[in-house]
Amino acid sequence: MALVLYDLAGADEGRRFSPYCWRIHLALKHKGLAFQTRPWRFTEKEAIAASGGQTVPVLEDGGRMVSDSWTIAEFLDAHHPQRPLFAGQAGWQHARLTKHWVEATLFPHLLRMLVKDIHERIAEKDKAYFRASREKRFGQTLEAYVADRDTARDQFRVALTPLRRLLAEQPHVAGAEPGYADYIVFGAFQWARCVSAYPVLTEQDEVSAWRERMLDLYQGYARGFPAG
Amino acid sequence: MALVLYDLAGADEGRRFSPYCWRIHLALKHKGLAFQTRPWRFTEKEAIAASGGQTVPVLEDGGRMVSDSWTIAEFLDAHHPQRPLFAGQAGWQHARLTKHWVEATLFPHLLRMLVKDIHERIAEKDKAYFRASREKRFGQTLEAYVADRDTARDQFRVALTPLRRLLAEQPHVAGAEPGYADYIVFGAFQWARCVSAYPVLTEQDEVSAWRERMLDLYQGYARGFPAG
Repeated sequence: MALVLYDLAGADEGRRFSPYCWRIHLALKHKGLAFQTRPWRFTEKEAIAASGGQTVPVLEDGGRMVSDSWTIAEFLDAHHPQRPLFAGQAGWQHARLTKHWVEATLFPHLLRMLVKDIHERIAEKDKAYFRASREKRFGQTLEAYVADRDTARDQFRVALTPLRRLLAEQPHVAGAEPGYADYIVFGAFQWARCVSAYPVLTEQDEVSAWRERMLDLYQGYARGFPAG
Repeated sequence: MALVLYDLAGADEGRRFSPYCWRIHLALKHKGLAFQTRPWRFTEKEAIAASGGQTVPVLEDGGRMVSDSWTIAEFLDAHHPQRPLFAGQAGWQHARLTKHWVEATLFPHLLRMLVKDIHERIAEKDKAYFRASREKRFGQTLEAYVADRDTARDQFRVALTPLRRLLAEQPHVAGAEPGYADYIVFGAFQWARCVSAYPVLTEQDEVSAWRERMLDLYQGYARGFPAG
């Protein structure tokens, strides 16, 4: 039976924009596994209840439902060991540091650029939930939160400095070949690309070339999804 | 013949404060290698000319002079393979990401807290060189650069978020045991500790407990150096 990835979708079911789901899209392609995706909206908690979680990605594999992107990546290496996502214990640590760096350092700036566009593009039935939960977290309206996104982009650009230096030395975050660390970072950029037309990177940024390489991977898999 | 580490020193030759040299102090202890240190001042370029570099750390090993902390760490793993600093290629990548993160993200905030204290504590003969080179780089006087170090500390605290999350999960940056990634991060804190009395971390910060563990390593080796 094919693997099924429950994948966050917008009002248009082809719009797939979760940075966590994108990690798993590419992890599955990395391993050459066939899979289907099932569009999922924020308020469809029932559909994934069997996973024990409240969010996607959820991976269904042979009747088992696995929740949480990190857990799914470990599950994939355990049950589909070809082309490991984590290069041993040290590779696991490398990806873990990347995860914390991306989530703590890049996500806050990206949210200040994207959150209003996300709200505009999600399903109608999700909008009240999304607005209320995010406004509670931010302590301000979505509109106020994105009021100065050019400043957020400047800060994002500074926050990317370690990545930029790394990619001046080697083609991928993980080294010569792409690995799970790349998929974690790329998920952040694909989130932006699939939910907003706002350019979070300037063309001149050296990080852009790496992003293009990631869009080209696996016969342009990620590039094939609706953007903007 | 014992290894010799050329090590940046202040006016007081016991004051050792280079974040790059501290990586090598601990790398040598990690491997259980006996070594001597030789105090070196910014303007003593002649003493290390044979290394081909202009800065310390320089490691002298059997008549060979090796410059640059990263190159020295690789040299140590190649020539003294016991207890590797880099856990294979993935461990090398992990340490490299850590290096770029520390240097791009932590160093700028630390400089805004420390650079005036550094100037006050270095050798008299180094002061003109140090002031001129740093003021040229910063585009302002040292005094102006550190004028608001409480704000720099607030930003430093935010910048530490990925490290704080990682250390909530495991005892060391490298995992269960300290590795070169820990020594890279610790070098930044030891720089602050050995050159300034300004507290860059609050006691309540969870990162403090890790710093204490690092100070305890190898019979309290790093703790034994003059602070403040």
